[in-house]
Amino acid sequence: MSKKRDIAIIGIGVTKFGELFHQSYDDLVREAALQAVADAGIDLDEIQAGWLSTAFPEIGVFKGRSGMDLVEPLNLYGIPVTRVSNFCASGADAIRNAANALAAGECDVAMALGVEKLRDRAPQDSIVKMMVELSHPFYQKGFTAAGTFAVYAKRMMHEYGVTNEDIASISVKNHYHGTLNEKAHHRIACSLEQVLGSPMVADPLTVMDSCPTTDGAACVIMVRAGDVDKSKHRPVFIDGIGLSVSTGWDLPFFDSKHDFLSFQATIDAAAMAYRQAGIEKPIDEIDLVEVHDCFSIVELLTYEDLGLCKRGEAKDMIRGKATRWGGEIPVNVSGGLLSCGHPVGATGVRMVVEVASHLRGTAGDRQVKGAKRGVTHNIGGPGAIASVIVLNNEN
Amino acid sequence: MSKKRDIAIIGIGVTKFGELFHQSYDDLVREAALQAVADAGIDLDEIQAGWLSTAFPEIGVFKGRSGMDLVEPLNLYGIPVTRVSNFCASGADAIRNAANALAAGECDVAMALGVEKLRDRAPQDSIVKMMVELSHPFYQKGFTAAGTFAVYAKRMMHEYGVTNEDIASISVKNHYHGTLNEKAHHRIACSLEQVLGSPMVADPLTVMDSCPTTDGAACVIMVRAGDVDKSKHRPVFIDGIGLSVSTGWDLPFFDSKHDFLSFQATIDAAAMAYRQAGIEKPIDEIDLVEVHDCFSIVELLTYEDLGLCKRGEAKDMIRGKATRWGGEIPVNVSGGLLSCGHPVGATGVRMVVEVASHLRGTAGDRQVKGAKRGVTHNIGGPGAIASVIVLNNEN
Repeated sequence: MSKKRDIAIIGIGVTKFGELFHQSYDDLVREAALQAVADAGIDLDEIQAGWLSTAFPEIGVFKGRSGMDLVEPLNLYGIPVTRVSNFCASGADAIRNAANALAAGECDVAMALGVEKLRDRAPQDSIVKMMVELSHPFYQKGFTAAGTFAVYAKRMMHEYGVTNEDIASISVKNHYHGTLNEKAHHRIACSLEQVLGSPMVADPLTVMDSCPTTDGAACVIMVRAGDVDKSKHRPVFIDGIGLSVSTGWDLPFFDSKHDFLSFQATIDAAAMAYRQAGIEKPIDEIDLVEVHDCFSIVELLTYEDLGLCKRGEAKDMIRGKATRWGGEIPVNVSGGLLSCGHPVGATGVRMVVEVASHLRGTAGDRQVKGAKRGVTHNIGGPGAIASVIVLNNEN
Repeated sequence: MSKKRDIAIIGIGVTKFGELFHQSYDDLVREAALQAVADAGIDLDEIQAGWLSTAFPEIGVFKGRSGMDLVEPLNLYGIPVTRVSNFCASGADAIRNAANALAAGECDVAMALGVEKLRDRAPQDSIVKMMVELSHPFYQKGFTAAGTFAVYAKRMMHEYGVTNEDIASISVKNHYHGTLNEKAHHRIACSLEQVLGSPMVADPLTVMDSCPTTDGAACVIMVRAGDVDKSKHRPVFIDGIGLSVSTGWDLPFFDSKHDFLSFQATIDAAAMAYRQAGIEKPIDEIDLVEVHDCFSIVELLTYEDLGLCKRGEAKDMIRGKATRWGGEIPVNVSGGLLSCGHPVGATGVRMVVEVASHLRGTAGDRQVKGAKRGVTHNIGGPGAIASVIVLNNEN
């Protein structure tokens, strides 16, 4: 697909992210959805179809395995609702399938909602153990998310002179941004020394280089761009959506030349989204980015995969504060996954809500001034599945 | 949506359904996908996007939680692949989202593949127990699938004079059909006495009124109808796709007037699909149907929900052999779920493959002669989520 998506977001909603023992999965669905519907100025029963993103029912509260878990809490019976799961790209993929349905004319008003409750673990200890035991053999051998991304960090250090301090600086930046976001899980600024001195998870990644496990939900209401009523809505437009599925686990066997310096899935997803949006020079044409900083190294590496700088120059962006709030191209002004936390199915939708609020000029203390075009990025299944969405405040 | 879908199926594939300990999840993906690609006369790398349907990774082999499980076995890296899960309607919903992407112009050639391995249970006994413990409260109270559908059976008997023999006759019919299908799990004809005499599961439903737990995969290759090359393909057209999400579990509380004689989700999904396909009198305009006979009563009841007869007259259809092979409107000539088994994510796609083979005239011993238009139906999450697809051999 090379044409512009021509989809508008007319309503956004997001819950507080955190350890939300006082709210059920259904409570989170209702809070995010009703916010978005009110923001759009429509009634709930104007929603004609839904896409629900929950990535891990089996390590959460066992909800989100079908469209029922969107319609039941909202009393929204009798419409088509698809449950999408695609690891960390689930939320973006819900938006993508909703955009396709709108463009196809299957529906006129669509809801994409991401939700995950990960803090309420199931009573049986065996569930997480089971996941490890039954998952991909690589996972069983310790090639966990942290372990995988640490290999990329080591290679970045070796090849490009990235330092522990560069990696930790991502965390410092995003925790600073998080203090400006009332919806973030952790709102605590931290120093370079605190990040470097926190317990090691997978060398060189420390606890503070890793995002927390979190509950939360986010929702967008979407229509075709041509159906926007500007007297009623403050629309934001989706120009491009890319999704690419590659492989993370098998890479060393699949491609012996793989350099562990980039994620092909991100490169491919960005190429798709940029082509649709007509972006040729990302650094010049994008005003802010939400990047999937599940671990701080992933943000650093992704500057290069998204074409925000040349290969090997990501370290210069963080050293020069280009991606800090007020810099040339602010990245993760929400606080990112490092501060907001990562309710997996919700994260991609939360990012779109974040960027949309900047493009509308309603992002409050952390508003990126004059933001016209923004990008969101997710990568999951360590390195395998990436999504990129390009948003614009003009059509 | 009221317009015709205008999508073509150009390739179909289906594995043997059964207890396939000798084949992995990946083996099943490869077998179904390569059959479909060969049937379409295209190369695998012409597939531009995929939709993977697996409903229950957590009670199977823990595969199918993302698009990776389609691209990895096929070496089909770098394309968008969505994993869809919607209980028993998962397969049909994968086809629906693929149809939307084609109509939206996101891709030109799409694969929808359903696969499930349910016979290889995880080593921990606790998994199935966990599902029951963590699932909806109704499930915990014994309101299982069999228990739920048995209530509908009792009501059909009370209100409409349906007999145990009528219900068992569905099983006898479908087991006879299954003997004609080399891909079916069970290929054993049975008598009314055998069905009625088999162990009771939930009165009046016996073991032989219940579909088996099965492994299998099915795949379709789809393009826009206008892109069909008739010199190369034997296309079948998708005219209508309906999906409706209602509620099964909460019905008695949600609607105190619910009569337990029909599934609103089926009625709504059929209305959507028929409207798109321009069907006004189903019984006159449809030549064969694949119905979700997870339990024999569901097929009987669905005759009425699909508008194949008036309310209360389903029993007359089975008594008059109208839905047997050679009858006025054959239902489940594949053998249905009762004979084929029910690898949940695969079932909806298998049905479309079955109907497509009849519309092409390639269904062998069980060919429905002169079949021009066929319908598939699924219902899952007991009674909550239904899909209906209308297929045509002309565009």
